Amino acid sequence: MLHPSATLAGFAAGLKFEDIPTNVVGRCEDLFLDTMGSILAGSSAKPVRSMGSFAGQMAPADGPSEDFVRRTRTSPYFAAMVNAAAAHVVEQDDVHNGAVFHPAAVVFPPALAVAQAIGASGREFITACVAGYEVGIRVGEFLGRSHYKIFHTTGTAGTLAAAVAVGRLLKLDADQMLNAIGSAGTTAAGLWEFLRDAADSKQLHTAHAATAGMQAAYLAKEGFTGAQHILEGAQGMGAGMSDDANPEKLVDRLGSRWTLAETSFKFHASCRHTHPAADALQAVMREHGLKVDDIVSVVTHVHQGAIDVLGPVTDPQTVHQSKFSMGTVLALIALRNSADLAGFDQALGDGSVERFRDLVTMELDKEVDDAYPQRWIGKVTVTTRDGRTLSGRVDEPKGDPGNTLSRPEIEDKTRRLGTYQGAATEQEIDSIIARVWALRDQESLDAILVSAA
Amino acid sequence: MLHPSATLAGFAAGLKFEDIPTNVVGRCEDLFLDTMGSILAGSSAKPVRSMGSFAGQMAPADGPSEDFVRRTRTSPYFAAMVNAAAAHVVEQDDVHNGAVFHPAAVVFPPALAVAQAIGASGREFITACVAGYEVGIRVGEFLGRSHYKIFHTTGTAGTLAAAVAVGRLLKLDADQMLNAIGSAGTTAAGLWEFLRDAADSKQLHTAHAATAGMQAAYLAKEGFTGAQHILEGAQGMGAGMSDDANPEKLVDRLGSRWTLAETSFKFHASCRHTHPAADALQAVMREHGLKVDDIVSVVTHVHQGAIDVLGPVTDPQTVHQSKFSMGTVLALIALRNSADLAGFDQALGDGSVERFRDLVTMELDKEVDDAYPQRWIGKVTVTTRDGRTLSGRVDEPKGDPGNTLSRPEIEDKTRRLGTYQGAATEQEIDSIIARVWALRDQESLDAILVSAA
Repeated sequence: MLHPSATLAGFAAGLKFEDIPTNVVGRCEDLFLDTMGSILAGSSAKPVRSMGSFAGQMAPADGPSEDFVRRTRTSPYFAAMVNAAAAHVVEQDDVHNGAVFHPAAVVFPPALAVAQAIGASGREFITACVAGYEVGIRVGEFLGRSHYKIFHTTGTAGTLAAAVAVGRLLKLDADQMLNAIGSAGTTAAGLWEFLRDAADSKQLHTAHAATAGMQAAYLAKEGFTGAQHILEGAQGMGAGMSDDANPEKLVDRLGSRWTLAETSFKFHASCRHTHPAADALQAVMREHGLKVDDIVSVVTHVHQGAIDVLGPVTDPQTVHQSKFSMGTVLALIALRNSADLAGFDQALGDGSVERFRDLVTMELDKEVDDAYPQRWIGKVTVTTRDGRTLSGRVDEPKGDPGNTLSRPEIEDKTRRLGTYQGAATEQEIDSIIARVWALRDQESLDAILVSAA
Repeated sequence: MLHPSATLAGFAAGLKFEDIPTNVVGRCEDLFLDTMGSILAGSSAKPVRSMGSFAGQMAPADGPSEDFVRRTRTSPYFAAMVNAAAAHVVEQDDVHNGAVFHPAAVVFPPALAVAQAIGASGREFITACVAGYEVGIRVGEFLGRSHYKIFHTTGTAGTLAAAVAVGRLLKLDADQMLNAIGSAGTTAAGLWEFLRDAADSKQLHTAHAATAGMQAAYLAKEGFTGAQHILEGAQGMGAGMSDDANPEKLVDRLGSRWTLAETSFKFHASCRHTHPAADALQAVMREHGLKVDDIVSVVTHVHQGAIDVLGPVTDPQTVHQSKFSMGTVLALIALRNSADLAGFDQALGDGSVERFRDLVTMELDKEVDDAYPQRWIGKVTVTTRDGRTLSGRVDEPKGDPGNTLSRPEIEDKTRRLGTYQGAATEQEIDSIIARVWALRDQESLDAILVSAA
């Protein structure tokens, strides 16, 4: 514990495919497929198109790595930038509850881009991604709740996750990996301020984490040095960006606890903070056979983080912002029994959604807040038109490790996301599914959707 | 004052060449020439070569913008990355005392790269750079002293300075400029932790500020939105990265106070925090005709920021770290009457330097600390072998606005830096000097050193 940054670096540099339990390898494949769906679903979004246009002005016109947004090949840096920007748009990528961190969006895009550039195998890719998850999630846990009140952990911890994944592919030794972590930490960024304006920054945060992390790893390979204690040092990330940073979290059961397998799939197409309440509302409506018109109010009993992130969104103006509106999410559940992508596309300006939205309030709940972020308990109190007060509760939302998605469910989700707005064809999705289910035996990850000219 | 970020954005978007006082235009030319010297002097440094190698793997092999490190042309993004990495290496670029911010290293490289890409004139370039200075310096002042204790303001405020300079070249309107500021602020980064290890992060910080700022501006041109209150908002930079952020500083006398003309040239090749004491020691030695062997101790009376930044450097292991060693800097003054680049190259491992270094201590001084950062007072107390206690004092160090460099002095400094380790030839420096002194009348900034193929 004298030097947790170095312990993390040593673990990441030394991780071997054989060290990774089979269920973790399988879950990594699950998450990669899930992420491909998210990238494709986000690829037509306007901010992602803008990022693609920027890449078009700055990037090489050809290269080894696939840009799934522009359907072109370029250098790894810009492929990672654009794919990472796309991965988080539809809010359907994974989340680690304890770290409040979305690892997939910042780990898979840079790892895939570099794997394609260096001709890495499926096993090398899996090993690198697992290393990125294990480090990034622990960094998120280390930075703690005070960090997440102002900083978007996926942007900050994400930069280190990306650096480690790319660093493992580049076969950095432990010293180089520590340098990569140092460089990544000193360029880590992402603030929540954009939420108030429904601005596009979330896409910038994932793109930035992917590219800054990649840059840190490549520079380390060249001998470029970084701070040796960027996480726990007196002028490091913990000191500058957190009030409750806990270095013990950085090295928590490294090599025996696999945090990748603790991540949750997202079932609803909204901010994760809305999911427990959405599942609890769904449960109480199912249990009591309620219809939307039976309900006159819903109180959601939430943790403080939900209030911090969702509280400012009282009158959503964009589809993206509506995914951060607790009232809108619960309205879709009540009206359609599903808060999926198509539902959000139609929610804005829909009078029935807006009427239900205004019936929903959030209240801080001690039990829920104390359990968070380790457990995301959903609790709602529903008042009915005929005067009943009904409680709904879920202890583990759909998609969490104890209530996870099966491979057919993941395939189904990938197909829905991957074909959203015509991003890919059914045949392309079939091909992706087949390759990912055989990922650990793939000799190369080249030409997933874009063949070399 | 309801929306200072928007006021800043409106000012930057609306700034015209005709609005800028002639002396500020002249000082901008001075600073650009000074920066070209710094870029060339830094171009052979190992971390800069590493950055160039990274660009070589990720960047287009040709383009409109000059990379002075690899002596090649590429896209503006990578030209800015590599030139900005080079600009701050030798610690001879400018500084704004009040903001404790080095604007030149993060403003000129991205502005030049984009000016070359879009065919901007000298006047458009000057206008853009002035806008970048005025915004970046005020952001540094806004973030305050608590920010600088942990964050490298040149990396953080620098990202906004770069975004505004590029944004002005791209002719962003006020709304787009506010979006650019939002995107820049949410990717702004840079921590001091690296100093403890003499790591290469300072070069990464300037490169990162230049590229993240450029990306923010280009994205804004494409319609990509950013937080509207990234500076003063409840989850913005001030909230997350400072304890004493003062929004009034953001709009302090915009349009009448020209902070660019308040910046200082660096005369010594060391961290700016050492300069006042270096000048004070020089003064007391000159006044009393002291030789190095006459001195048995030097107490430097300094501000807290000097102790924070220089204090950890007790036994410098690299040339770069020695520039953050108060003792080493004062040893060079005592031994050579100059702390220039060549002096530092020879200082490491020199017994006479190390002996004098150990005679030097720092003490917090109330007068100096209270005046900082508006004024950088230098005060030393020298004890002599024959038992005298002598005081040295300077109220304005060499290079500060009230004690500035003349154009011949700037030419001389540029020639020394530009030819350092053979970076450029004397003829090339002559050509650069001639072009910069005619900057406001140049129709284009193309082919300063690297002609199109």
